[in-house]
Amino acid sequence: MSPPTAAELPVGESEFDRDTEVVPRSDDPGVFDAVLSSGWTISLGINGGYLLAIADRALSQVLPHPDPLSVSAYYLTASVPGPAVVRTEVVRTGRSMSTGQARVLQTDSEGNEVERLRVVAHHGDLDALPTEVRTSASPPVMPPPHQCVGAEHAPDGVFGPRETNGLIERLDVRMDPATVGWALGEPSGRGEIRGWFRLADGRPNDPLAVLLATDAFPPTAFDLGIRGWVPTLELTVHVRARPAPGPLRVVLGTRNLAGGLLEEDAEVWDSADRLVAQSRQLARTPRRTR
Amino acid sequence: MSPPTAAELPVGESEFDRDTEVVPRSDDPGVFDAVLSSGWTISLGINGGYLLAIADRALSQVLPHPDPLSVSAYYLTASVPGPAVVRTEVVRTGRSMSTGQARVLQTDSEGNEVERLRVVAHHGDLDALPTEVRTSASPPVMPPPHQCVGAEHAPDGVFGPRETNGLIERLDVRMDPATVGWALGEPSGRGEIRGWFRLADGRPNDPLAVLLATDAFPPTAFDLGIRGWVPTLELTVHVRARPAPGPLRVVLGTRNLAGGLLEEDAEVWDSADRLVAQSRQLARTPRRTR
Repeated sequence: MSPPTAAELPVGESEFDRDTEVVPRSDDPGVFDAVLSSGWTISLGINGGYLLAIADRALSQVLPHPDPLSVSAYYLTASVPGPAVVRTEVVRTGRSMSTGQARVLQTDSEGNEVERLRVVAHHGDLDALPTEVRTSASPPVMPPPHQCVGAEHAPDGVFGPRETNGLIERLDVRMDPATVGWALGEPSGRGEIRGWFRLADGRPNDPLAVLLATDAFPPTAFDLGIRGWVPTLELTVHVRARPAPGPLRVVLGTRNLAGGLLEEDAEVWDSADRLVAQSRQLARTPRRTR
Repeated sequence: MSPPTAAELPVGESEFDRDTEVVPRSDDPGVFDAVLSSGWTISLGINGGYLLAIADRALSQVLPHPDPLSVSAYYLTASVPGPAVVRTEVVRTGRSMSTGQARVLQTDSEGNEVERLRVVAHHGDLDALPTEVRTSASPPVMPPPHQCVGAEHAPDGVFGPRETNGLIERLDVRMDPATVGWALGEPSGRGEIRGWFRLADGRPNDPLAVLLATDAFPPTAFDLGIRGWVPTLELTVHVRARPAPGPLRVVLGTRNLAGGLLEEDAEVWDSADRLVAQSRQLARTPRRTR
C-alpha cells in the first residue's frame, strides 16, 4: 500500500467515523440515530463488520468501559442503506468489565421498526489489561503490501457490479497472491485467505477498525470454489489489544463447510506481531455450490 | 468407559434432563422456572455449559425451530445453586431459522432479580440441513476411552474439594494421557486437552449435551501451568449436526493467553467422524499466574 500521506485522516475525521456516527437522542436516553451508508456495501448487502462497528460505537457511549472485549452479532434481516436506530441497554456494569446490548433497527415501508441485528458485548479498558503476553500462535508470513493483490484486481463479476461494492473503495485490502487463485478461476480448496488491511483514507486502526477487519475480505468460501453471496448469520469477535500503528494482517480460514453452512475464523495481527483479535462467524452457503 | 448398560437412560430421564428442566409459567408466556443444581458445580461455580443448556432448553420451547445452530452466552454474575427464572424473547422467526434471547436470573437476598447470563441464539432444524459435508478439519486421534484418564484420577486439590465438584460425578470424561501432564505437576505448555465425553448415567448425546461438552473438561489453562479458577466470560457454540450415537471426542486448545485473558477453542466430534460443534470461549485468568 502507498506510504501514509500528509493528508492521512486521524480517528474521528475519516469516512469510517462519519459513516459509523451514532447521534444520541436527547429525549430518549440510550437510543441513537445512525445512517447505514451505501458506501459499505458488498454484493447484495451492507457489510456485517461495518454494522457491528455501528452497534459497538453506540455501546461505547453508554457503557463505562470504552473498548470491546467480546462482541457477538446475530444478523436477523438484511440492512438497507438509509436511516437506522440503535437501541441500547446497559446489562451490567462492573469494575473492570461492563456488558451491554445494542439492537439496530430500520423502519419499513409500513412504518414498523424491523430489527436488523442484535449485538451483545462485554466492554473493558484495553489499556488497563495486565501486560503479560504468552500467545503461542504465530503471526502470518506474507509478502509486503505492495506485492499483494487488491480487490480492484479481481476479475469483473467476482464481486458483482462495481457500483454496488462501495466497500472495496473504502478499504485498502491487499491479499497474499498465494491465496487469490480463486479470483483467477483456480480456488485452492484450502479455504484460506490472508492479507493486509487498512482503511483507504488512511485512518489509523483502533478497536472499532479491528471489528471491521474481521469481515473485510472476500469470503473464504470463494477459495472453496463457491460462488455467490455467503451471508453472515452470526459473528463473534474477541478484541484482545489496542493495535499498534500501521496496517493489520488478517488470516482467514474455513475448515467446516457442511450442511449448507460454514464457519470462517479470522485472526488479526498488528505491526508489533500481537494477536489483537480473533473472530469466528457462521455463514450460509448459496443454495447451489460449485 | 464401561459398555452401555441395560439401565442406560434415554433422553428425558437422566440427571441432565432433570437438572435442565424448565417449567413454563402458565400466566407468563415465555417465562420459565428452573433450579440450578449444585450437582453441576466445579470448583467455585456452576458450570457454564450447564447454564447454557438450561437457557437453550427454554429457547427450544418458544422458538419454532428446535435445534441450536449458533448460541452465545454472556456470563454476568456468578450463579448459585437454587431457583432461577429464564425470561425468553422471540427475536425473529423465519422459514429455516429463528432467533431468540434468554436471560437467566436469580433473586438476591433483597428480593431483586439479578441476571446471571444472557444468551442469544439462532435455532434451526439440524435434520433438515443439506447433507453435503466438505469438512477439511480432521478428527482427533486418541487412545480408546478405557486407556484414557478420568477426572477422578486428578490429584486431590486440582479441582478443589470433591464435595464442591458435582460436575465430575455427572460426567464421564476421559482424557488422552498425552494431555494430562498438568495433573501430575508437568503442564506441557501447549495449552491442549482432548478426551472422550459422555454423561455418567449413559444419557445419549444430543445437541443440548453437545453444548455441555464444549465446557465440560478441565481448563486448558492448567496445561499452561495456570492454577486456580478460570471463569468463562463469554461462550459461543456452533452446533452443526446431530451427533451420531456413542461418546463424543472433544479437542480443546488455547493459543492466545495474554492480558489476563485467554480464548479456549473446542471441537466436538462424533463417532461418525463428523465435526458436530465448534466453540470458543473467552475466559479470565487468575490474578496471579504460575
